[in-house]
Amino acid sequence: MFQLNENFQKLPGSYLFSTIGKKVNAFTQANPDKKIIRLGIGDVTQPLAPAIIEALHKAVDEMAAAETFHGYAPDLGYEFLRSAIVSAYKERGCDISSDEVFVSDGAKSDSGNIQEIFSVNNRIAVCDPVYPVYVDSNAMAGRTGVYNKETEMWSNVIYMPCTMENDFVPEFPKETPDIIYLCLPNNPTGTTITKEQLSEWVNYANKVGAVIIYDAAYEAYISEDNVAHSIYECEGAKTCAIELKSFSKNAGFTGVRLGYTIVPKELKSGDVSLNAMWARRHGTKFNGAPYIVQRAGEAVFSMEGKAQLKEQVAYYMKNASEIKTGLKDAGYTVFGGVNAPYIWLKTPDGTTSWEFFDYLLENANVVGTPGSGFGPSGEGYFRLTAFGSYENTLAALERIRKL
Amino acid sequence: MFQLNENFQKLPGSYLFSTIGKKVNAFTQANPDKKIIRLGIGDVTQPLAPAIIEALHKAVDEMAAAETFHGYAPDLGYEFLRSAIVSAYKERGCDISSDEVFVSDGAKSDSGNIQEIFSVNNRIAVCDPVYPVYVDSNAMAGRTGVYNKETEMWSNVIYMPCTMENDFVPEFPKETPDIIYLCLPNNPTGTTITKEQLSEWVNYANKVGAVIIYDAAYEAYISEDNVAHSIYECEGAKTCAIELKSFSKNAGFTGVRLGYTIVPKELKSGDVSLNAMWARRHGTKFNGAPYIVQRAGEAVFSMEGKAQLKEQVAYYMKNASEIKTGLKDAGYTVFGGVNAPYIWLKTPDGTTSWEFFDYLLENANVVGTPGSGFGPSGEGYFRLTAFGSYENTLAALERIRKL
Repeated sequence: MFQLNENFQKLPGSYLFSTIGKKVNAFTQANPDKKIIRLGIGDVTQPLAPAIIEALHKAVDEMAAAETFHGYAPDLGYEFLRSAIVSAYKERGCDISSDEVFVSDGAKSDSGNIQEIFSVNNRIAVCDPVYPVYVDSNAMAGRTGVYNKETEMWSNVIYMPCTMENDFVPEFPKETPDIIYLCLPNNPTGTTITKEQLSEWVNYANKVGAVIIYDAAYEAYISEDNVAHSIYECEGAKTCAIELKSFSKNAGFTGVRLGYTIVPKELKSGDVSLNAMWARRHGTKFNGAPYIVQRAGEAVFSMEGKAQLKEQVAYYMKNASEIKTGLKDAGYTVFGGVNAPYIWLKTPDGTTSWEFFDYLLENANVVGTPGSGFGPSGEGYFRLTAFGSYENTLAALERIRKL
Repeated sequence: MFQLNENFQKLPGSYLFSTIGKKVNAFTQANPDKKIIRLGIGDVTQPLAPAIIEALHKAVDEMAAAETFHGYAPDLGYEFLRSAIVSAYKERGCDISSDEVFVSDGAKSDSGNIQEIFSVNNRIAVCDPVYPVYVDSNAMAGRTGVYNKETEMWSNVIYMPCTMENDFVPEFPKETPDIIYLCLPNNPTGTTITKEQLSEWVNYANKVGAVIIYDAAYEAYISEDNVAHSIYECEGAKTCAIELKSFSKNAGFTGVRLGYTIVPKELKSGDVSLNAMWARRHGTKFNGAPYIVQRAGEAVFSMEGKAQLKEQVAYYMKNASEIKTGLKDAGYTVFGGVNAPYIWLKTPDGTTSWEFFDYLLENANVVGTPGSGFGPSGEGYFRLTAFGSYENTLAALERIRKL
């Protein structure tokens, strides 16, 4: 008689965005005349850049003729894309070789799958609040112990609170972790740490023998000079860090699906290379990103692509700046929005995250995301995103200011 | 100190196609004047059908304007594609609902990932020879015991030999499996079983409490009436079977990447629904297939798409028929090629699979795949595929006939 993976039954319900959806629907039905503005979801809204559209059309045409048709892609991704990625790293002073780059269908898949190459006995450390995939994918593998509904914490996960009290900089945990997840610039808080602070994490990981899973999905939004765009800018990172990269937020690929992961060849446990293990995993359980999508990815690194995407990122960051300034002027305590497209605000007067959600929905008809949905230390915070249109962003702020 | 997933170290090297590549390269270097014909790899060569190209261009244009841009896709896939899939099942008399369809980036990912929802204590049964992903993905999860290099078998896997002695029809194993992998029509043998024989497997699985992972990737190549196109044509399958479907071989999507998996809501273990578990896995560790690719998938089910793809399948099956007839005329014992694009031939005069590979390469300059690469019961067999061009197929046969 077959049996199921019992770890799935330990997972708490995934209610955050469904609860938001239900509340918004109920409000809309009761108030059909009110126009809702959504600044809650981390999904882009601007169209793909012209250079990317052109690359896509061209690749589609190639698929229409036998001479230029492309079947199965190379396991690790096409060389044209991997070498463009390698060049981009080189520009940042990072020496990554083409066989350390693994092209995938997106950073969410990679961040969920990367734990497979580690022992089920390893202990993970995550920031709190946190992107839920890191924890849930480890929970499914049986690495997180038991979930406590009261504390909203797993018994075998090390939580590193990131709050205004520590300037959202995670501290080295008391217990030694085996795997450390760092998303910087951070989702959901929109904050980040300096290159020097990141270097301390690299040194710590090398010292205690931990591996860092470094999620750099928001790297393109960094505006400050003292922030690293890649963990490999820090000396020693190649012996302790795997870096996850996305095209979703820098190039608007949330619906195009493309990402890549760097697994340095220096990263080893004894004689065993993690690069070889991830190559085996990639080759066995994945069959490459679409040819046309990899060509679109290549266009992201072209002269035109880069120029167009710089403008797109600037568009969203203008929104971020408007939200930050607008909320400050309205008396809110606000974080993030400088090196990331997320604004993280302290809910006023001791209201809970959900109370503030209801307040904003009912009085300003603006939808955001309750910070407590990302973990217990997110309680008392609230996330707004810069991914809306400029017009909607201004309109939402106008409403909030009038509250 | 982090530790690695030790199960990866138990995997034997994946040498089949790399050994083939090395042998072919060596031969080419020694004989630069000889023109090699490759009939070894299961990759398509014909361009995408016009209806699919048109859908792709249209979808790319939609991504170029904010009003029609598509960001994150719904977890399970777009409704337009899932309802097209549901209609196709209805035409075969199968009642599948839209929330039982999970759109993915391809059947290889699904066939590698589906084992995640099962207990690590479950025991799998596979046909021998077999598509390596079923076994390797379970090996990585720690479900297969120890690998024996001599026998080329895992200690905790139930092997069901499929040879000419049993007409390539797997027999119910002596030991009871928990998970049964069936790929029908079969890769690599190109053979299949009747709907009545498949119904016996469904009854067996329901009786012993096993789940069938049914890989129907080659369904479009079925030409005989008494063969089921879906396991759900068999009564009782919804309580015991998950079906994996691919667009790779019926629509030439090996480089486009699209697939789907059916997990019926009736499929349960106690109160726990496998459909809900797969939905959770899908939502946590995957972020949808690209919008443009899902539109291409929709075009596969359109009137034009269906007509064009019928021709494409007929093109490959004409190759299959030529290979089968040609080899028979040349005195070979040949199987498959009627309901699948693979020809499985008995190597002559007791030669091993690899000996025949060398013989064919050196004397006919034709590349095929040694049957032993798919498992011990593949020894003494050899696979040729119908996915080459018609001209190359005929030329290869002419050479083999002259041997």
